[in-house]
Amino acid sequence: MTDTTTPNGAKADKDRVLIFDTTLRDGEQSPGATMTHDEKLEIAEMLDEMGVDIIEAGFPIASEGDFAAVSEIARRSKNAVICGLARANFKDIDRCWEAVRNAGRPRIHTFIGTSPLHRAIPNLTMDEMADRIHETVTHARNLCDNVQWSPMDATRTEHDYLCRVVEIAIKAGATTINIPDTVGYTAPRESAELIRMLLERVPGAGTVVFSTHCHNDLGMATANSLAAVEAGARQIECTINGLGERAGNTALEEVVMALKVRGDIMPFRTGIDTTKIMSISRRVASVSGFPVQFNKAIVGKNAFAHESGIHQDGMLKNKETFEIMRPEDIGLAGTSLPLGKHSGRAALRAKLKDLGYDLADNQLNDVFVRFKALADRKKEVYDEDLIALVADEQTNDAYEHLQLKKLRVICGTEGPQEAEMVLAIDGVEHKIDATGDGPVDAAFNCVKMLFPHQARLELYQVNAVTEGTDAQATVSVRLQEDGRIVTGSSADTDTIVASVRAYVNALNRLIVRRQKTAPGEDVKTVSYHRQ
Amino acid sequence: MTDTTTPNGAKADKDRVLIFDTTLRDGEQSPGATMTHDEKLEIAEMLDEMGVDIIEAGFPIASEGDFAAVSEIARRSKNAVICGLARANFKDIDRCWEAVRNAGRPRIHTFIGTSPLHRAIPNLTMDEMADRIHETVTHARNLCDNVQWSPMDATRTEHDYLCRVVEIAIKAGATTINIPDTVGYTAPRESAELIRMLLERVPGAGTVVFSTHCHNDLGMATANSLAAVEAGARQIECTINGLGERAGNTALEEVVMALKVRGDIMPFRTGIDTTKIMSISRRVASVSGFPVQFNKAIVGKNAFAHESGIHQDGMLKNKETFEIMRPEDIGLAGTSLPLGKHSGRAALRAKLKDLGYDLADNQLNDVFVRFKALADRKKEVYDEDLIALVADEQTNDAYEHLQLKKLRVICGTEGPQEAEMVLAIDGVEHKIDATGDGPVDAAFNCVKMLFPHQARLELYQVNAVTEGTDAQATVSVRLQEDGRIVTGSSADTDTIVASVRAYVNALNRLIVRRQKTAPGEDVKTVSYHRQ
Repeated sequence: MTDTTTPNGAKADKDRVLIFDTTLRDGEQSPGATMTHDEKLEIAEMLDEMGVDIIEAGFPIASEGDFAAVSEIARRSKNAVICGLARANFKDIDRCWEAVRNAGRPRIHTFIGTSPLHRAIPNLTMDEMADRIHETVTHARNLCDNVQWSPMDATRTEHDYLCRVVEIAIKAGATTINIPDTVGYTAPRESAELIRMLLERVPGAGTVVFSTHCHNDLGMATANSLAAVEAGARQIECTINGLGERAGNTALEEVVMALKVRGDIMPFRTGIDTTKIMSISRRVASVSGFPVQFNKAIVGKNAFAHESGIHQDGMLKNKETFEIMRPEDIGLAGTSLPLGKHSGRAALRAKLKDLGYDLADNQLNDVFVRFKALADRKKEVYDEDLIALVADEQTNDAYEHLQLKKLRVICGTEGPQEAEMVLAIDGVEHKIDATGDGPVDAAFNCVKMLFPHQARLELYQVNAVTEGTDAQATVSVRLQEDGRIVTGSSADTDTIVASVRAYVNALNRLIVRRQKTAPGEDVKTVSYHRQ
Repeated sequence: MTDTTTPNGAKADKDRVLIFDTTLRDGEQSPGATMTHDEKLEIAEMLDEMGVDIIEAGFPIASEGDFAAVSEIARRSKNAVICGLARANFKDIDRCWEAVRNAGRPRIHTFIGTSPLHRAIPNLTMDEMADRIHETVTHARNLCDNVQWSPMDATRTEHDYLCRVVEIAIKAGATTINIPDTVGYTAPRESAELIRMLLERVPGAGTVVFSTHCHNDLGMATANSLAAVEAGARQIECTINGLGERAGNTALEEVVMALKVRGDIMPFRTGIDTTKIMSISRRVASVSGFPVQFNKAIVGKNAFAHESGIHQDGMLKNKETFEIMRPEDIGLAGTSLPLGKHSGRAALRAKLKDLGYDLADNQLNDVFVRFKALADRKKEVYDEDLIALVADEQTNDAYEHLQLKKLRVICGTEGPQEAEMVLAIDGVEHKIDATGDGPVDAAFNCVKMLFPHQARLELYQVNAVTEGTDAQATVSVRLQEDGRIVTGSSADTDTIVASVRAYVNALNRLIVRRQKTAPGEDVKTVSYHRQ
């Protein structure tokens, strides 16, 4: 394949690999990782700014919420192609087009499961499925110049049939052919051979972009994606932090950095500004409630751990001895001096800019007030404190039906634990006390008595963001009610206060979700949504 | 290579891949993952039982603690070969032999950095280094029939020189040649080519086992290891959960399951009982204080998430549609009924056995008492509750200089937070109260006033182990004092109580460590220890 130019897509020369991010679709589909509308817009903006070529913004027909998010992301898009997912039927495709059409560069992505196991679900014969593919891709292409088609579970589809359906999709007008390893089953050599076979056998293969979409069930998504590129694929589908169902999707940061570091053996380029990697990684971890493990490649807390700490060896004169990337390459500041109570607004603004936050003046003011309050209580305010503070500011913005006004908790080894609380509900203050099993349970019981609800606590998680016993703790709380999943988070030096704020924040989000959707309506049905 | 039998090592036919686990050496070396003596013995026993062929138990000359652990693991070993690490000098090798010689099947593993960057550190010419390799491997082989040699940073060593030194090591008597990708730099094709080149060019290559040792800096450790096996390597060096410096080592669970699931394209066998994977993964996460991320391949909480929850789709008639492994294959019980307050000792014993814990009668009694207390407070006791409870029992066994007798904390939005505590120090009870910034800070201040110390809090982490607001929280606290790092953990439905217990537990460990080592003595110097 030499010509990788798509009619209305991103233009690519032969060594240019397109980065297709599906954090907002396949990532967000991960059980428990549901994001709010505003969070989706924010992540989309960050993806666009970091140079992602195509953003898969959602699955418009899955829910009203998905439709609204994809539409708004399309409307606000700058450089990136905005893509929506659609099953192989006209209704899905029409709805998808309705959502993406306002983008500067829209794309429709339609798919159908082509392996024997997946053909059995809609109970279609090979011929019937081939007809369906022809009709739906033709329909999509009549709406939009930029059409991507995927044979779901491609790696378990018979080669002859795969060649046949790919040819049909190309003839019907698909401009990108994506080959998904839906179950995370393949290995690099096999992944490369599949792409090579398609390029060799399918008439017209040279006129479209081939794409790879891998899952990490056996820990090989990154290697499989890169092997596909070496074989001729020129688009990689991936997510920030490898977010995604089960073991997740290919991690954007891994494929991008591998291509950057090993350009000598893999001479391909992406358009990604790698210095934006850390800030978007942190943001996605925060809004999804999926923390990144210490030893995660590229973005884990320990990924550059040779940089500091007691294991730094005096004999280590040459950094290259153990370092193949520099922390700066991914936007990790080399040495970072903590701020203190005497630091001014300019220092705060400069530091936030270093950390990837370019705040408007009024936002900066709010953060500055909270920074001063924190600096009064904490000797040194670290980068991580600031990130928690800004994230807290951003997540707690919009929804304020419930507000924690006052909390006092008594706990310890001799129960019962007691909590006393003042909670404002739509501006009216209510006071109550309750006991519970543990201080968090007692405090949550107060909230439940004042604001009765049936939501189930699905996740309760606390992380200290910096060192020292006066560290701020960030607490994430995930609730589920009738299939709606919301995550709230908050940071405070008092773990219990942070817990209640996170809980209240999650409830505020739930209230908004209740207003937007009937019970169950926002729940996505699954088998056709996977890739 | 057809003959992969090592003189005194594990016997292997041509399709048998040896699993060399280095969780206790390269894993434990990860900043912050330090394990206690007893934890090392326990992990070694689990590795031996799950069928690991070679256990690298430590680096005997690095510290007295390492020496003692390797010696004891050697003495207790059953089937596994026990290996110790040694730099390329007689003193290291002698000390290593002293530690491993009591094993049924001992191995000495000696190494030197052969890339240009690493040759520059001891400032040796190519010829001088070649002589050093000849002398040290000969010396090791005179002590032990089973000798492994590694050219550190092999993937960045000139090919001609690499062939030359590998040949020297083989002639000097090395029985296993390990090829480390020290900086996590290689890609699958390159990894395979390197092994293939060595097998083709080095005289005598067919008489030894070739081994691969990969790091995950670019996210490709698993694929690189398997590519090396396809090219002829018959030993994979790996760690549980991919623990290790920076982005970690190859994950044992990934390579083992990939070989099991994809036997069709990679026809190789390991001796691992895969049903032991989940329990050792949990145990290593607990003792190292390195949590496993939700979307980690094989052992992440979400790795089998298609199994349950709201995303389960009624249309999903055939499990294989999205499932390439069964949860049972890695020891995850399919459906698990929670225990309650009416469950008896037999039910508890049976459940613990399912979870991989075969407790002695007195241990079972202790756990049963704590289980009953928990069941009184919590309606349903889940598998994860029990695992936390047993882990808590096991970690808090030995060290009881400090004991938390009573705690009462008052906290909330209006500071200062206050704590009142009774702490027993070597059996004598002391009462105190203190304020602090947050309830944890206040309670920790009480401990610090009664037991003054200079240890720095390096990590404070809370995880809810089950769902519901009455969930038990497990808290991990990592302290550092003069280079000694200790981790304490505890579980309780009251987060603050669990926090203080974890803190006290960490201090108890620190007291033991102080008695065993002078300050700094236990700190390992680094550049030569890495691989």
